[in-house]
Amino acid sequence: MQAKLFEEIDSLYDEMVEMRRYLHQYPELSFHEVKTAEFIQEQYKLLDIPFQANVGGNGVVATLQGAKPGKTVALRADFDGLPIQDEKDVAYKSLNDGVMHACAHDGHTTTLLAVAKVLKKYQHDLAGSVVFIHQHAEEVAPGGAKPMIKDGVLENVDVVYGTHLWTNTPYGLVQTAPGNFMAAADKFTIMIQGKGGHGGIPHQTKDPIVIGSQLVTNLQQIISRKIDPIETAVLSIGSFHAGNAYNVIPDTATIEGTVRTFNENIQQFIIDEMTRIIKGTAISYDVDYHFDYAKGYQPLVNHPEHAERIIKAASSVDGVKKAEMIQPSMTGEDFAYYVQEKPGAFFFTGAQIENGFVPPHHHPLFDFDERAMKIAAKTLITATLNINN
Amino acid sequence: MQAKLFEEIDSLYDEMVEMRRYLHQYPELSFHEVKTAEFIQEQYKLLDIPFQANVGGNGVVATLQGAKPGKTVALRADFDGLPIQDEKDVAYKSLNDGVMHACAHDGHTTTLLAVAKVLKKYQHDLAGSVVFIHQHAEEVAPGGAKPMIKDGVLENVDVVYGTHLWTNTPYGLVQTAPGNFMAAADKFTIMIQGKGGHGGIPHQTKDPIVIGSQLVTNLQQIISRKIDPIETAVLSIGSFHAGNAYNVIPDTATIEGTVRTFNENIQQFIIDEMTRIIKGTAISYDVDYHFDYAKGYQPLVNHPEHAERIIKAASSVDGVKKAEMIQPSMTGEDFAYYVQEKPGAFFFTGAQIENGFVPPHHHPLFDFDERAMKIAAKTLITATLNINN
Amino acid sequence: MQAKLFEEIDSLYDEMVEMRRYLHQYPELSFHEVKTAEFIQEQYKLLDIPFQANVGGNGVVATLQGAKPGKTVALRADFDGLPIQDEKDVAYKSLNDGVMHACAHDGHTTTLLAVAKVLKKYQHDLAGSVVFIHQHAEEVAPGGAKPMIKDGVLENVDVVYGTHLWTNTPYGLVQTAPGNFMAAADKFTIMIQGKGGHGGIPHQTKDPIVIGSQLVTNLQQIISRKIDPIETAVLSIGSFHAGNAYNVIPDTATIEGTVRTFNENIQQFIIDEMTRIIKGTAISYDVDYHFDYAKGYQPLVNHPEHAERIIKAASSVDGVKKAEMIQPSMTGEDFAYYVQEKPGAFFFTGAQIENGFVPPHHHPLFDFDERAMKIAAKTLITATLNINN
Amino acid sequence: MQAKLFEEIDSLYDEMVEMRRYLHQYPELSFHEVKTAEFIQEQYKLLDIPFQANVGGNGVVATLQGAKPGKTVALRADFDGLPIQDEKDVAYKSLNDGVMHACAHDGHTTTLLAVAKVLKKYQHDLAGSVVFIHQHAEEVAPGGAKPMIKDGVLENVDVVYGTHLWTNTPYGLVQTAPGNFMAAADKFTIMIQGKGGHGGIPHQTKDPIVIGSQLVTNLQQIISRKIDPIETAVLSIGSFHAGNAYNVIPDTATIEGTVRTFNENIQQFIIDEMTRIIKGTAISYDVDYHFDYAKGYQPLVNHPEHAERIIKAASSVDGVKKAEMIQPSMTGEDFAYYVQEKPGAFFFTGAQIENGFVPPHHHPLFDFDERAMKIAAKTLITATLNINN
Repeated sequence: MQAKLFEEIDSLYDEMVEMRRYLHQYPELSFHEVKTAEFIQEQYKLLDIPFQANVGGNGVVATLQGAKPGKTVALRADFDGLPIQDEKDVAYKSLNDGVMHACAHDGHTTTLLAVAKVLKKYQHDLAGSVVFIHQHAEEVAPGGAKPMIKDGVLENVDVVYGTHLWTNTPYGLVQTAPGNFMAAADKFTIMIQGKGGHGGIPHQTKDPIVIGSQLVTNLQQIISRKIDPIETAVLSIGSFHAGNAYNVIPDTATIEGTVRTFNENIQQFIIDEMTRIIKGTAISYDVDYHFDYAKGYQPLVNHPEHAERIIKAASSVDGVKKAEMIQPSMTGEDFAYYVQEKPGAFFFTGAQIENGFVPPHHHPLFDFDERAMKIAAKTLITATLNINN
Repeated sequence: MQAKLFEEIDSLYDEMVEMRRYLHQYPELSFHEVKTAEFIQEQYKLLDIPFQANVGGNGVVATLQGAKPGKTVALRADFDGLPIQDEKDVAYKSLNDGVMHACAHDGHTTTLLAVAKVLKKYQHDLAGSVVFIHQHAEEVAPGGAKPMIKDGVLENVDVVYGTHLWTNTPYGLVQTAPGNFMAAADKFTIMIQGKGGHGGIPHQTKDPIVIGSQLVTNLQQIISRKIDPIETAVLSIGSFHAGNAYNVIPDTATIEGTVRTFNENIQQFIIDEMTRIIKGTAISYDVDYHFDYAKGYQPLVNHPEHAERIIKAASSVDGVKKAEMIQPSMTGEDFAYYVQEKPGAFFFTGAQIENGFVPPHHHPLFDFDERAMKIAAKTLITATLNINN
Repeated sequence: MQAKLFEEIDSLYDEMVEMRRYLHQYPELSFHEVKTAEFIQEQYKLLDIPFQANVGGNGVVATLQGAKPGKTVALRADFDGLPIQDEKDVAYKSLNDGVMHACAHDGHTTTLLAVAKVLKKYQHDLAGSVVFIHQHAEEVAPGGAKPMIKDGVLENVDVVYGTHLWTNTPYGLVQTAPGNFMAAADKFTIMIQGKGGHGGIPHQTKDPIVIGSQLVTNLQQIISRKIDPIETAVLSIGSFHAGNAYNVIPDTATIEGTVRTFNENIQQFIIDEMTRIIKGTAISYDVDYHFDYAKGYQPLVNHPEHAERIIKAASSVDGVKKAEMIQPSMTGEDFAYYVQEKPGAFFFTGAQIENGFVPPHHHPLFDFDERAMKIAAKTLITATLNINN
Repeated sequence: MQAKLFEEIDSLYDEMVEMRRYLHQYPELSFHEVKTAEFIQEQYKLLDIPFQANVGGNGVVATLQGAKPGKTVALRADFDGLPIQDEKDVAYKSLNDGVMHACAHDGHTTTLLAVAKVLKKYQHDLAGSVVFIHQHAEEVAPGGAKPMIKDGVLENVDVVYGTHLWTNTPYGLVQTAPGNFMAAADKFTIMIQGKGGHGGIPHQTKDPIVIGSQLVTNLQQIISRKIDPIETAVLSIGSFHAGNAYNVIPDTATIEGTVRTFNENIQQFIIDEMTRIIKGTAISYDVDYHFDYAKGYQPLVNHPEHAERIIKAASSVDGVKKAEMIQPSMTGEDFAYYVQEKPGAFFFTGAQIENGFVPPHHHPLFDFDERAMKIAAKTLITATLNINN
């Protein structure tokens, strides 16, 4: 049956590319993915697979009941975009200004819909059930996973799998880890309340741009000096905004960023260090501040047995050159919550375009090797079938 | 005649306050002051003083021909607002979102219109002519002064005066200087072209926020280490913008600011130092950049004789506690170009509200003591009359 | 035989403490350990074990030929001190001003001499040979290990072991790793050639202290931004020296530090980043510089089989609560070169004094739990005997 | 008489050069100028002018009683050296290792001795008295001026003059100011008490070098952001010392520097800002510190009448191209205390060697145009004679 299903995926490929590119042109921001959700619902109507809309928000969940008894496997794909201006020079470039599928969620959605279409065709041979979880809002905490789980998407589910098309990984590789796989991803906001004034009279102000710049510099030391070099932690600042005229020193500067860790003690240590550095910097320059730290997704920890099952499944897929266990990644994923509730695993499907400069995920030039969707689909199908074999 | 004109100003005061507050509610950005210009034209129509609109842009120039022969005195008021959100809790708060008269140009306009109204009433006694220059776009280089001068507003003018209602100066004081009075005010923009990416994978990026923060810090040294302490120079950064998501390291950071000097050598020295520091910082972190430095208004240098005349005129005005020569100010003014062309002087009319915290010019809570408009008007009237006495 | 030898060590303990404290009072700097070497030679004379002095420098090597045939095991202890002022308040405090055994090499020497004494007593029962390598100059690259190896200390040696009394590890623990155990430890020196002058006239100088401070700050970003968070690297600055009068800006600042890595690519990447950051900083401030980077010890990589043997040996020692495999340490060790040549392993013998504040290695208050010498000796003896069992 | 005295100075010139170069070879540190003081005493013995040694420390004061009645004029020269290594390639290079006359005090001493010799020759024609104040310890607060004044050197003195051979000023110029002339010069010491440890284990330390570097950077903002640009202030760091091994993070870093101001309010403001920035930085990084701020010499304020007299005197000296009033200098001088007690003035005698690079005062290559000693001597003689004319 695997062989037939693989053939089906191969013959669907042109349609998959078309669908992915359509989705790529119409990305929507996290928690605002209304049209994308409607598109997904439309597909399940066409496939005649029963589904529920508005699950935990904009989420869509479809369930395919196999003809034979067996366990229930859930497969999850996320479908939100990012607030990035698409700068690619391609025909399928984003048509939504300032929004972009710069993290391959268009590919995830397409892959899962292809899996659903193919399995539907073989429903009579299928043992157990397959739950297709189309999740909104993966990019922005608190994310869509938690409310979807709260709305019951994992009820009666025995195993849960998911994948990320991953351009840091060459096409042809499949990667996972038998435990820690992706990091806790927290968000922080620091607002420095200085005192604005005329750009020519700085001594009457408390310059929040100079103070904020010092703070950005000071925060580097947490990673460079205060974290055990053997441990793993990231502190990145994603935005710095202050002022709206070249000759006016503004009142405030606002700095936003993220902290990534695998270990609660280190997470808390970084929060404590940040708190102290921000406080000390504010004292140095006699300013007020707000510091808001929102813990995001917890670390994604695979179940070792299912990580092994993914490696085994991927190894049987044509086009896969290597399926391997790797070191964990500092990126975060709210897939973490699915494997916290149920056995399962998440994996990377290598999708790098081999072509000189590789724009990283979340980059305005991001793109991926669309053939990876076939590998992702086949690996998910195989892992699913193997559960009831 | 002075006494009568002062009485007229006093009896106009309620009307002046009303007009100033009306203007305060409808500020317009530099080079976009269309409705303000129309308002001014409307006033001159009502006063039956001939005027020209659209002079050098949105400028308005009215000329009152006295009944007796004499010299021509030009009086100048600017009328543009700033891109600042008005945060005052007053009835006359700005109704134009994000725009504010945070530099008293509403008061300047009102003062000059009051002077025109009063002098019109005594036109039969007036010697010489008075040119009322309502200038647009003082806040943003290249400013409105140059195109208005190019359009001929100073032709046949013998002397030019202007004032700034000044809240750094207590109400009751009038201040000027017998030479250097206000600084050269330049604008610069630095764009750091880093390489964006996922906030959890910093080593694949070139983080423009951390680099920009280093740069802001590095630039401080020009003032603290490289300028002769006896000399006067300011380098202020007014805006720092980078990124639009907490978890995405952006591609670029954009920093804008101003440099203020009184001396061409120091101005050029600062440009050279900035050029080198920016280049060195870019090399350090292997990024590209654009550095754009636009020389703004030249220093405003009063003619000593006319600075003395302002002191003398102000000393005869009721309400003036002291008229004094002061050190120069680091703020810039395109009034510089008028006194470059013609003899004249610029002065500060103290307008501080004595009430604890004094929000500086360009601050979201900026306001001024409206009584200062009377002192400004009377000083301008007196200085004007004295020319032909 | 193990039991008897353990008893011998126990009965030697008071003597060991006395010897260690004597050595503690007379530390000598790396490559200048003349009296310490003489002391060691004296001991071997007393023990009637043949030895060679001046091996590869100040090194001393003794060889005990067992009565039975068997393999040759080398045991290594280092004996140099550090340029640190001893600030402990103890009777055995260093008597050599500015020099201190702040890294337990006094304990290592004592331990190895005790092992030699005990094994000598049982020479008739001993199979194979034991080579006692007393190595000078571990603290300063290029170190004593390489010239001692070049002088032949590992000829005919089958296995080599060594230990570090380790105060980061609680007393009672023995720790090693089955591969990467200690880091590559490099040294760098940066000399900034500014331009000195009068402290009141900074604009005539190029201030190397401000520039050096910027550089120290800038270098932090290599670790915080440019190294994969999953990887392991340290860049520490150990000294910053500039100026000798409060009111004179000096000509130069000199900065020394160390880089620690486990991976040649990352080592080279850090060198490249440092080179660029130093160059860029020098361009920013128009100064010259010298940058000297000396690669130090290579990473210490244990042979897995012998790491296992150490765990097994330690587990049979009284007083050992746990013998465990751990993550690698960022400290460096020229023991690296012994295990590059011959099979063997290095291990930590927990020596922390449980008593509130634990001064780290190389700290002026450093001290260790002397009982750990017994555990170290017994573990070395057991591992040695096991080779020929 | 002036003409004759000028001729005497001219004929003494070779001897002056010889004496100056002798003194240049044997500089002594402030408060340790024992041999220099003996040399000066020796000269007065040879001249047969009565003197007192050990005045207020190592000071020497000689008094020449003129044959005619008149006022008493004191002339002061300082004679201490600096802790700088002489790097000049000249025959008269310092022979005292690490000590250097890098501020021309050798020239001052020579000049005053020449003045004494010449006036002695014309004692019979001299009206009033001349007091020759050879002051020790000008370079290091609390300086020699105060204790010498306390010991009575200004008793019965009517006027006091002094000069500095000044290489920022071209040879042939004489400069002074009619009020503020030299700055208040304070000393500060900041000791950061971090926590040392192994360079490979930074997270167990509190790295005082990184923290100190941040502090040096942070302190720049006081000048660049918090001082009115019209005002004058300097904050310079003269030394930064931490650590004595490349691989050991030290416990402490010690930073010394100087603050220069003309205004007590700004002096106090800087102290307050420093206090807050140091405190905030210490909080940021959880370290202790000592901050010691010692107010040094007060600003040197000339008496306007005597500044005018200096200009007049210098204008009559051959070799003087221009005698002019200038802006104040940021350097400090304890001559401040003499003119606080008595009328008088201090002036610069231009001594720049026109020869490409001009090493600033306190620079290891400092040297001066020795002909300036003649101008200095003649100006002092003329100003002195004029008092009793």
